[in-house]
Amino acid sequence: MNEKIPVGILGATGMVGQNYVSLLENHPWFEVTFLAASEHSAGQEYASAIKKRWRMPGKPPEAVGKLPVFNVKDTASAQKKCRLVFSAFSMSKNETLQLEREYAAAGMAVISNNSAHRLKDNVPIIMPEVNPELLEIIPGQQQKEGWNKGFIVTKPNCGVQSYVLPVAALKKSGLKIDQIITTNLQALSGAGYPGQSALDVLDNLIPLPSEEEKAFNEPQKIFGKLEGDRIVSDQNLKISSNCVRVPVIDGHSSCVWFSVQGAQPEIAEIEDIFRNFRGVPQEQNLPSAPQPVLRYTRDPSHPQPRLDRNAGNGMAVTIGRLQKAPVLGYRFTALSHNTLRGAAGGAILTAELLVSRGYVA
Amino acid sequence: MNEKIPVGILGATGMVGQNYVSLLENHPWFEVTFLAASEHSAGQEYASAIKKRWRMPGKPPEAVGKLPVFNVKDTASAQKKCRLVFSAFSMSKNETLQLEREYAAAGMAVISNNSAHRLKDNVPIIMPEVNPELLEIIPGQQQKEGWNKGFIVTKPNCGVQSYVLPVAALKKSGLKIDQIITTNLQALSGAGYPGQSALDVLDNLIPLPSEEEKAFNEPQKIFGKLEGDRIVSDQNLKISSNCVRVPVIDGHSSCVWFSVQGAQPEIAEIEDIFRNFRGVPQEQNLPSAPQPVLRYTRDPSHPQPRLDRNAGNGMAVTIGRLQKAPVLGYRFTALSHNTLRGAAGGAILTAELLVSRGYVA
Amino acid sequence: MNEKIPVGILGATGMVGQNYVSLLENHPWFEVTFLAASEHSAGQEYASAIKKRWRMPGKPPEAVGKLPVFNVKDTASAQKKCRLVFSAFSMSKNETLQLEREYAAAGMAVISNNSAHRLKDNVPIIMPEVNPELLEIIPGQQQKEGWNKGFIVTKPNCGVQSYVLPVAALKKSGLKIDQIITTNLQALSGAGYPGQSALDVLDNLIPLPSEEEKAFNEPQKIFGKLEGDRIVSDQNLKISSNCVRVPVIDGHSSCVWFSVQGAQPEIAEIEDIFRNFRGVPQEQNLPSAPQPVLRYTRDPSHPQPRLDRNAGNGMAVTIGRLQKAPVLGYRFTALSHNTLRGAAGGAILTAELLVSRGYVA
Amino acid sequence: MNEKIPVGILGATGMVGQNYVSLLENHPWFEVTFLAASEHSAGQEYASAIKKRWRMPGKPPEAVGKLPVFNVKDTASAQKKCRLVFSAFSMSKNETLQLEREYAAAGMAVISNNSAHRLKDNVPIIMPEVNPELLEIIPGQQQKEGWNKGFIVTKPNCGVQSYVLPVAALKKSGLKIDQIITTNLQALSGAGYPGQSALDVLDNLIPLPSEEEKAFNEPQKIFGKLEGDRIVSDQNLKISSNCVRVPVIDGHSSCVWFSVQGAQPEIAEIEDIFRNFRGVPQEQNLPSAPQPVLRYTRDPSHPQPRLDRNAGNGMAVTIGRLQKAPVLGYRFTALSHNTLRGAAGGAILTAELLVSRGYVA
Repeated sequence: MNEKIPVGILGATGMVGQNYVSLLENHPWFEVTFLAASEHSAGQEYASAIKKRWRMPGKPPEAVGKLPVFNVKDTASAQKKCRLVFSAFSMSKNETLQLEREYAAAGMAVISNNSAHRLKDNVPIIMPEVNPELLEIIPGQQQKEGWNKGFIVTKPNCGVQSYVLPVAALKKSGLKIDQIITTNLQALSGAGYPGQSALDVLDNLIPLPSEEEKAFNEPQKIFGKLEGDRIVSDQNLKISSNCVRVPVIDGHSSCVWFSVQGAQPEIAEIEDIFRNFRGVPQEQNLPSAPQPVLRYTRDPSHPQPRLDRNAGNGMAVTIGRLQKAPVLGYRFTALSHNTLRGAAGGAILTAELLVSRGYVA
Repeated sequence: MNEKIPVGILGATGMVGQNYVSLLENHPWFEVTFLAASEHSAGQEYASAIKKRWRMPGKPPEAVGKLPVFNVKDTASAQKKCRLVFSAFSMSKNETLQLEREYAAAGMAVISNNSAHRLKDNVPIIMPEVNPELLEIIPGQQQKEGWNKGFIVTKPNCGVQSYVLPVAALKKSGLKIDQIITTNLQALSGAGYPGQSALDVLDNLIPLPSEEEKAFNEPQKIFGKLEGDRIVSDQNLKISSNCVRVPVIDGHSSCVWFSVQGAQPEIAEIEDIFRNFRGVPQEQNLPSAPQPVLRYTRDPSHPQPRLDRNAGNGMAVTIGRLQKAPVLGYRFTALSHNTLRGAAGGAILTAELLVSRGYVA
Repeated sequence: MNEKIPVGILGATGMVGQNYVSLLENHPWFEVTFLAASEHSAGQEYASAIKKRWRMPGKPPEAVGKLPVFNVKDTASAQKKCRLVFSAFSMSKNETLQLEREYAAAGMAVISNNSAHRLKDNVPIIMPEVNPELLEIIPGQQQKEGWNKGFIVTKPNCGVQSYVLPVAALKKSGLKIDQIITTNLQALSGAGYPGQSALDVLDNLIPLPSEEEKAFNEPQKIFGKLEGDRIVSDQNLKISSNCVRVPVIDGHSSCVWFSVQGAQPEIAEIEDIFRNFRGVPQEQNLPSAPQPVLRYTRDPSHPQPRLDRNAGNGMAVTIGRLQKAPVLGYRFTALSHNTLRGAAGGAILTAELLVSRGYVA
Repeated sequence: MNEKIPVGILGATGMVGQNYVSLLENHPWFEVTFLAASEHSAGQEYASAIKKRWRMPGKPPEAVGKLPVFNVKDTASAQKKCRLVFSAFSMSKNETLQLEREYAAAGMAVISNNSAHRLKDNVPIIMPEVNPELLEIIPGQQQKEGWNKGFIVTKPNCGVQSYVLPVAALKKSGLKIDQIITTNLQALSGAGYPGQSALDVLDNLIPLPSEEEKAFNEPQKIFGKLEGDRIVSDQNLKISSNCVRVPVIDGHSSCVWFSVQGAQPEIAEIEDIFRNFRGVPQEQNLPSAPQPVLRYTRDPSHPQPRLDRNAGNGMAVTIGRLQKAPVLGYRFTALSHNTLRGAAGGAILTAELLVSRGYVA
């Protein structure tokens, strides 16, 4: 790759936007050339727009700090400046659907952190190690929508990363997993900033009922199949999740139980599956791919959010506590970083996959 | 009752012991007349022994503060001072077995917070709302051991209260529950003092593998049956628990899934069961019995440890988030106060039950 | 007092308003008869308006739950329902000045938690143990403003209670204190709800520059003198405060240094002053007056917010760590509950003082 | 430097020891060749001895993991393996004095994190940016003690770094600072592991009286002068500190007030002093020297422990909130990382200074 691909960040002043800015500094393939946010910030230099809102350690990278912030509705400017946009703005569902479609119609690849498009049957939810083949819907999507070069892909909710990756490894090795129960212990940064009030979570835990539907629908679609011009969810996979907000800055934990149809594998076999798993990003050595993506440990005092969330630069999933269980058959605990793997980092890996497959040139 | 029953606290300087001291202040039936602790504290006035270790709000009650602290091995003094002892000292398992037996042999009723005797088949684990009938083992226990008036009963680990009480209500109403999955989110005070290092739990969660066996064995025995002179655990009840230490001062939460054999009840039926449940302590209006013992709420933002742990003076269990689930069938979240219902308070309620049934006179 | 005095709460749905509702349940002198909030809540029953916003343990008192919520601008309704209002609504400074004046003009005693009127020279900042004599400005205030029965008094910012009370005790005993340095470690509830983001304060501390001016101006006025129809601040008292938000739910701590002009008292003399201090509320045994108001301890591990904030039902100040210091001369640490003594409780005590002095009949 | 200098870590399994192991990985001048700990760990490979105690993110460096752990009393082995030891073992004061002297007598440079030797008048407390000239006591120390090549230097308590460095910058620029007041808000890791109980600091703050004497004595000695063969503390500098443990993982904050004799500088002058300060480590570009060492900000929302503690790889001090104050004259807030700058990192910088000055060859 001789020249970097110009990319844009929609919602650049928000928490996820700030993560994109940090992670894309010195990226070998991408260069941030377009920043957009709400009308309120538009027209300012990024460094000035972000001044009181920057929540990352250190300061914004100097080059990006000097970029102007555009109005996120200004797709015409985006079109001139970049070929791919990371979409992390905050609008109503209808406005989001509309605006992301405008970016695609204007010829840009849209990788969205928003939930609006996730359950549309011709838009895939991509986890690069899990379902890269679902990118094959793109030509059909473009044809149906009448888009020339642009398209839309999404990444899943941050809450499902921790267990979907281990489950994918098991499924790819041939195990027929049909039932999953998870308790998701979700970190504060998953609510954005300001997010949860300190009065809610100090010496306390908060139920998160609104996250629980996503924990059900999204994995079914992630494990779905391309049939013609739409993705059909795997309705045979039953999942029940209880989601709880915990006083942890970063790092979502999942306490998982699962059942396997047919012959019941030994723990040692499952350990081998976890240890040996490699997805397409690992095989192709994509720039943001963690090596390995699953870190399996027998140490019963792990995973722990603060000690394990940064494994693989925050892109790996740490798995521990694996054992047989008298109900459902098996259990483990998994942990991943919700703003890295679970948000900006996961989307950047998806963008790398799109480039490596020729969808973005 | 004209005169209060004299009771002792073994391990009176520890955290659970301090809870006993607080809860028994002004108790209508019991008067603290004997305090015992390790050799280190023995011989001092309680107020002086506890001076740097008192962790409860306010100060120790004045009358108790003036009592002498005896060596916990001094059963002869105990025998003269009290008829019932709450046992919360810290020793090895063998020493605990031995010393609690000595108290029983010396004629005292022993209600133990220690785990040593819990799995002995002629010692019951009592939850007064759940299995008061298991007290009927006492005569057999006394006969077998050659004890005259003394005996030993235990209370369960603090981690199982939250889900065993709701499950008991369901079972008593006739539902055949055969499988349970729980994630137990356990508070810091469950580890005693000093317990967990602050460095472990600030911005972090810690796996608790050692608690998980108790979460399995104890409920099976609590739901067991008296057969001759021993209690037979209910091996048909399958339970799998994942236990996690969370940065919450007091209040254990359980995220519970369960399955019912046969006809599947509607949620409204289960709600009615929870709302209408009364155990023996409620019916007999025992002094420490919460009215009601189960507090059911449809508010999806509850239970929360800090806001709900003190319901019913810390003796009630708050249940919420009840719903059907695609795996196992049903789920709910329950919360109880681990040092009140889960330790000293639960044991005092057991003592009240023993008195009301005539086992302590 | 044969009949209770009808009182109103302005801003009844907010955090301070909820504290008033809780604290006034079963008050011997006052009965809540009027609740007001923003237009948004007006017209509903309080129980329904507060449903998703109630942050206190347990539920709102039943009788108050059935009261209608009025629009806070509806002074005409207030006038019919109550004689005294606790003002804790949230508006701009100008709107606050205007609306509180309307309540006074309509004949009601206004006790305000808002800062708007605090620095007006004919409105006193009252701390009942410190400056009850400043209530004597009321007739002059009424005359100047043309108000018949109504008037306005304020209570100070929650951040100054901890050190102003001990300093007042020292000044009343004759010590000439001329310089004070404090580091104020302020609890989360001081910011209201939602207040501080959990992401700001977990594993972190936050500077609070906006509180620092109040820490300077308000004590000068609290220690001021009535001269004619205005209160003149004590400009000779020099105070410098550094305010920091700490991850503590309730309880503001102040690390205080002070200097004394002239003869330097021994520590034992200062201890005696703290131990013997009684203000007017203590002497008159007002219903909310803590006995004593200053709790002095030599235990070097106190004060601690969680263990000491509820001393005297949250109305006392706990003082410890008193010693001579090589700079300024003396130091101590003091703690008070910021939403009880520091907000609703302090204002209720002021209301009791007003009643006992005949300003509210 | 052609070859790395072999160094040892005494107390290698403790928290500070683990920090040394991490920080010395890939150090350009030093190579860890000797690890020592208590008898309990002696004889094992480091990887095995540390297995359950490793509290740093990731794993121990592979090469160090394979080193054997020696008994810390085995100075004979140390002598063969290294020329300089970082001393962070835990023993009584007398044992520490004795053992560190044995290392020096055996010819090794001892850089100690222990407090035992800090107040000995022929042992300097070194902060490389502050008082490098006090190293000149080394020949006199050797002569008096009869040591050939070995010697002992110490580094200060982690609690004093935050304010001593800014004050040093002011003093070096010619300001005569005579009085300092600080409130030190000290992080959990300052107590080692397990250190503070979680029950002590969740929703709480804890007084730290035992730290307050160090906050007084050590700066006086750090700013002292070499007179003949001893260091004379600067008794004219008056310091009073209130130390409080706060629920922050890493990063000690100091709220500082100070007075200046004579002409009172403008804030802009002080800002310039902070911005332009360079010490010997910066001038000589020592490997661990942060550039710059003082990070001054006008942003009133900083310093914050979590966002600023890692500035300059945890070796810089962040200063903010600088302003004139009505008492003492000036105030600011400063923050430094207590286990990096405040413990292992500060000692490594001292070791680099010793090498650059020829005391270790």
